[in-house]
Amino acid sequence: MNPLCWPHITSATVLIDSDRAKRNIQRMQDKAVAAGVILRPHFKTHQSVDIGRWFRDSGTHQIAVSSLKMAQQFERAGWRNIMLAIPINPRELAAINRLAGECHLTLAIEHEDALLALQTLSHPIDIVIEVDAGYGRTGIDWRQGNRISDLANAALALRHVRRVGLMLHAGNSYQASGDDAIAAVHQQSLERLSHVRQTIAAPAQAQLFVSAGDTPTCSRMSSFPGVDEIRPGNYVFYDLQQQHIGACDWDDIALTLACPVIARYPERNEVVVHAGAVHFSKDYLLSSERFDGRPCYGQVMRSSAAGWYPEPVAGAYVHSLSQEHGKVRMPAELIARTKLGDMLVIAPAHSCLTMAAMSDVVMFSAKA
Amino acid sequence: MNPLCWPHITSATVLIDSDRAKRNIQRMQDKAVAAGVILRPHFKTHQSVDIGRWFRDSGTHQIAVSSLKMAQQFERAGWRNIMLAIPINPRELAAINRLAGECHLTLAIEHEDALLALQTLSHPIDIVIEVDAGYGRTGIDWRQGNRISDLANAALALRHVRRVGLMLHAGNSYQASGDDAIAAVHQQSLERLSHVRQTIAAPAQAQLFVSAGDTPTCSRMSSFPGVDEIRPGNYVFYDLQQQHIGACDWDDIALTLACPVIARYPERNEVVVHAGAVHFSKDYLLSSERFDGRPCYGQVMRSSAAGWYPEPVAGAYVHSLSQEHGKVRMPAELIARTKLGDMLVIAPAHSCLTMAAMSDVVMFSAKA
Repeated sequence: MNPLCWPHITSATVLIDSDRAKRNIQRMQDKAVAAGVILRPHFKTHQSVDIGRWFRDSGTHQIAVSSLKMAQQFERAGWRNIMLAIPINPRELAAINRLAGECHLTLAIEHEDALLALQTLSHPIDIVIEVDAGYGRTGIDWRQGNRISDLANAALALRHVRRVGLMLHAGNSYQASGDDAIAAVHQQSLERLSHVRQTIAAPAQAQLFVSAGDTPTCSRMSSFPGVDEIRPGNYVFYDLQQQHIGACDWDDIALTLACPVIARYPERNEVVVHAGAVHFSKDYLLSSERFDGRPCYGQVMRSSAAGWYPEPVAGAYVHSLSQEHGKVRMPAELIARTKLGDMLVIAPAHSCLTMAAMSDVVMFSAKA
Repeated sequence: MNPLCWPHITSATVLIDSDRAKRNIQRMQDKAVAAGVILRPHFKTHQSVDIGRWFRDSGTHQIAVSSLKMAQQFERAGWRNIMLAIPINPRELAAINRLAGECHLTLAIEHEDALLALQTLSHPIDIVIEVDAGYGRTGIDWRQGNRISDLANAALALRHVRRVGLMLHAGNSYQASGDDAIAAVHQQSLERLSHVRQTIAAPAQAQLFVSAGDTPTCSRMSSFPGVDEIRPGNYVFYDLQQQHIGACDWDDIALTLACPVIARYPERNEVVVHAGAVHFSKDYLLSSERFDGRPCYGQVMRSSAAGWYPEPVAGAYVHSLSQEHGKVRMPAELIARTKLGDMLVIAPAHSCLTMAAMSDVVMFSAKA
């Protein structure tokens, strides 16, 4: 369990297997080309300028982010086509306008009130109207086609708006499990989007573009009828939740957290690592069949000299987190071989949140 | 709902009411003096050098932290008596030793294997042995008194160890509700500590000191028999969890998150704020009576020109978080008065994790 080859890693540290991550990046790029859609990866997952370069090397020129700060960060790093894929915050308009003067910016709206705010912009922008096709977070309900049509045309009529599109995030795919369930969410989302698209009146109808796609559907489906660009993000790393719903295999998981063991309790089948809520985040996977019905914040992986094998260690998972402590359920025979200071390599439930929480990150390649 | 007096706050921002925080700090300091114990506040809650000065102004000279990084940060800021209140990580020994050369350092152990690591240190240190009196996270079970005695004496015999003590964190008090339940945890913890203390053999017995105390017990109890120093942390800000269990009043909560409204759904009694798991963290409060049985990540407070009133807005709370989005349940009549770009002032479930997650922090005083 002890990657002694990394003596410089002394505290909780994100490990990124660049071979796996680059393979994930390339595979999605190839799929987009084959499906005839543009890939606009969501960079909220990694928020890293260095990892951004791996995407650029695979042919990516358009990206999505979910905060103004991320947009500014990637604009400074040379990205010139950025979608701010969250409903605009009117308080940020001055900074958004400056950004629109520096790059090709796409903004998301989902209410008529946002039009007033957009009128104050003085640089050209694209607009997407967020449609809710069943997820129930943000977006105009897909059944309100006429309202969406009116909003699309009102947006297109604004002075600095170049073009108008529809944006969808079918986050309900994260609740699906298995290809059939993912396909059902995909099918339903596309049908509802198609319904909305047909309702849009001229002139917006003629030039309408559609941006959709989350990691589960983009990973498992291969055609995206009616969609112009796909916008998955998590797939660069994947994680335990994605593996659980069948969106990826163990060998696709490219991010883990190296966690030092600071306490051992063979009598209660537990070790404690110095890695808690501030490292993992508190997203968990709940499965009736796995993890004895407990929440699972991370799965211990079998470590190797070059990182980790794509094999979970049976019965070894994080089931409780406080701020700095993580309680790891572990078979007693494994605890007997585990020493204080050993590093466990743990795949988190949700890699996006773990990456967002951590500043200590090591990227490595088994080929190097 | 709109603190228009803060136009410079445009995105999710932690608001710290310095009047309330300083009052919380002073009240605990006064209680420690009255009870005849030393106050060693746990700085993991705020991790802020600036807020550390408020403690120093109230008479604090000894602090606790839960990571080497925090210890280094506060040592650089001039703190000279620091307890690293988490079982030592043998991988960090070299850096721990350097730190022990710079300040009066107390280290925590809870296994015999840690002695070997401590032998390599070359600067004087204090040692605390963590005792588990029922919380079940880290520490030697309080029933293993002879083992604790042997470990205490073995630690004291090490060349650079100045003195040895016992450390307790009764985190089970967070599950208590009301003064009687908090008092019961307090009573039980002190009895078990007393039992352990009596078991410790000479020579460790003669100079043994005891460090204990969490925010609920330190807030509600006034005497700490058998305890030399108390170590609460959360009380500087308190939060919704502490209010819920009765450890504080609404007017004691000194930290909120200002969250911009980016979407409104009167038809489903919801607004969405641009503040998600990366801002709040995902700790929640679960109450069968409150919040319609849903998890509550934060409670909307009635905002004022000078911050917020100590009054929750009835029926307005965060019930769902994704990375950047927070869904806020809210009565329809309130949504009717809420506009895109308005700022909601929300008390998070767990202030320590919100503070750890956020870099955008504004401290203010209503008196200024």
